[in-house]
Amino acid sequence: MDAPSKTGTSPAVAAEQARALELVRGARRFLLVGHVRPDGDCLGSQGALARGLIGLGKQVTILNADKPAPAFDYLTRVLPYHTFAGGELPPHDVVALLDFNELSRTGPMAAAIARAGSKKLVVDHHPFAGTPWWDASYVDVSAAATGVLVWRMLKALGAPLDEVVARAVFTTLVTDTGWFRYSNTDRETFALAGELVALGAEPARLYGALFQRRPMAEPGALARVLARHEYFLGGRLVVVDQPLPEDGAAGLDDGDPVLDILRGVGEVEVVLYLRETEPGSCKLSARSKTRFDVNALARQFGGGGHVKAAGATIAGPLAEVRARVVAAAQRALAAVPPEEAR
Amino acid sequence: MDAPSKTGTSPAVAAEQARALELVRGARRFLLVGHVRPDGDCLGSQGALARGLIGLGKQVTILNADKPAPAFDYLTRVLPYHTFAGGELPPHDVVALLDFNELSRTGPMAAAIARAGSKKLVVDHHPFAGTPWWDASYVDVSAAATGVLVWRMLKALGAPLDEVVARAVFTTLVTDTGWFRYSNTDRETFALAGELVALGAEPARLYGALFQRRPMAEPGALARVLARHEYFLGGRLVVVDQPLPEDGAAGLDDGDPVLDILRGVGEVEVVLYLRETEPGSCKLSARSKTRFDVNALARQFGGGGHVKAAGATIAGPLAEVRARVVAAAQRALAAVPPEEAR
Repeated sequence: MDAPSKTGTSPAVAAEQARALELVRGARRFLLVGHVRPDGDCLGSQGALARGLIGLGKQVTILNADKPAPAFDYLTRVLPYHTFAGGELPPHDVVALLDFNELSRTGPMAAAIARAGSKKLVVDHHPFAGTPWWDASYVDVSAAATGVLVWRMLKALGAPLDEVVARAVFTTLVTDTGWFRYSNTDRETFALAGELVALGAEPARLYGALFQRRPMAEPGALARVLARHEYFLGGRLVVVDQPLPEDGAAGLDDGDPVLDILRGVGEVEVVLYLRETEPGSCKLSARSKTRFDVNALARQFGGGGHVKAAGATIAGPLAEVRARVVAAAQRALAAVPPEEAR
Repeated sequence: MDAPSKTGTSPAVAAEQARALELVRGARRFLLVGHVRPDGDCLGSQGALARGLIGLGKQVTILNADKPAPAFDYLTRVLPYHTFAGGELPPHDVVALLDFNELSRTGPMAAAIARAGSKKLVVDHHPFAGTPWWDASYVDVSAAATGVLVWRMLKALGAPLDEVVARAVFTTLVTDTGWFRYSNTDRETFALAGELVALGAEPARLYGALFQRRPMAEPGALARVLARHEYFLGGRLVVVDQPLPEDGAAGLDDGDPVLDILRGVGEVEVVLYLRETEPGSCKLSARSKTRFDVNALARQFGGGGHVKAAGATIAGPLAEVRARVVAAAQRALAAVPPEEAR
């Protein structure tokens, strides 16, 4: 995602951040909650904040609606991650919401969090347009990752920083910058990555843990999906689809590798990946290399996302859904001149 | 490649580097030469040093035996890159050899460089075991890229640093660290990347230029090669091959994408990619995710390289060559216990 450029911290934001730090300093028991299907920025932010707060003598529980993916085992092995199983929340003075700003994104935990008498703290880098509903917030939409904000908080709190914090914050950076490739990769991202390496984060090991433990069936599934690619508009648009796997052949669990490969083609501006997830229902993943807005495209089909990455769930058989989506994308893309990737 | 850990600069090395800077300060006309098939570290180092020296009022020519790949056009458009066409070298006081330390690696330029009455300066991060044959050197084998050394030189020389220098040095970093993924990615790599972004290097644009202008035929070729993958030893070894393309079907020009995908599988320790380049001749590319030494494997077939990346050219029909290489790799790998990627 493109983050707005840094503009410095306004006095109002600085005061709000100071209030957030005061809240943390004064409390003893913390519950750190994430959004459903927590990603690396969410999990890493939880892990880093937990480690730092425990180092300051606080009591901390990490709680998510969904289990962390196995790729993050280097975090979950050493930090207090728990999965919500219904019922009441553990006793706590402050609940921190990391990497999101709407309570509904905690899924099945939302009602219990709303009911709890604890103070609500939001730590996030996403924009928020509504009326603040929390007690305190530490927000900077120009930060490349929520983990950057956790790092700033830990420094301000004087928390002990070790290799566990370093690995957790490094995880947030590489998740949200696409391993330092996206346009939100800024000076602070790299400067912080350097500090984290000095503290003990090992880039090659973390890359291996996060991206080199893929399933044995993936290369074959990737070959089958890639073989079905089709170009339109001289290559400006490329489409792949994946029917429901037949005869036990493995399908792709993760669309990122195929999206990355197709996005790598020079002529390509937009990639569409359509997957039949059950009979009569398809999942669209759309990516843009240019200013072309795939969010607008996904919205036409009831989905959404960001300018450069969006998705939708679309009812209908694969061939028919594909024809509709391709027609809409061709129409929209043909209306704008070809553009070099940016 | 694993770089030795930094140990600080010894007085002897510091004195040698000071001599190199003296040589540069005192000279007026520079020839910056690279190794054959110049890569991003070589080209970026040449570009950054050229830009800095020109800024100091020097006269500079960049000369290589081979043309830079089109991916580097953002450098070649704005800097004085030339390709050697035989004959004598342009008049110069100092010839700088960037990213290598043996004159023979300049290929067809070697004789003319040896003949020239100019001073020889080596700027490099590769180990050298022989007797120094140059007039001065700026060497640090712990540097992640030769471009790091060029950066240090430019700072010491007080050269003007701008976005052209920044893009060139950034190119060296990402080439030699595999875009910040390899184990040589250290604190200095990230700290320097941050400075370069502040100077105007744009990571997303450079990623696009270097890695997202691939040929339209690549996804199809990748699908065909990946479909031929075969696992051995429970997945510890994976092998793909590519026969001579038939019926005009495009082959893969670049093995990196297929090697990267297969290396991403959790169980995989060693990847072998065999390509029939002409009837009766095959090219082997071997990669290791663990301590397993593919250099030793490649040497058995008359090739070589490094512990984690090596290759060989092997005579024989593809099926026969494949059988021999797979047997050798299985034997060697089965002799050591499975290992987690590192």
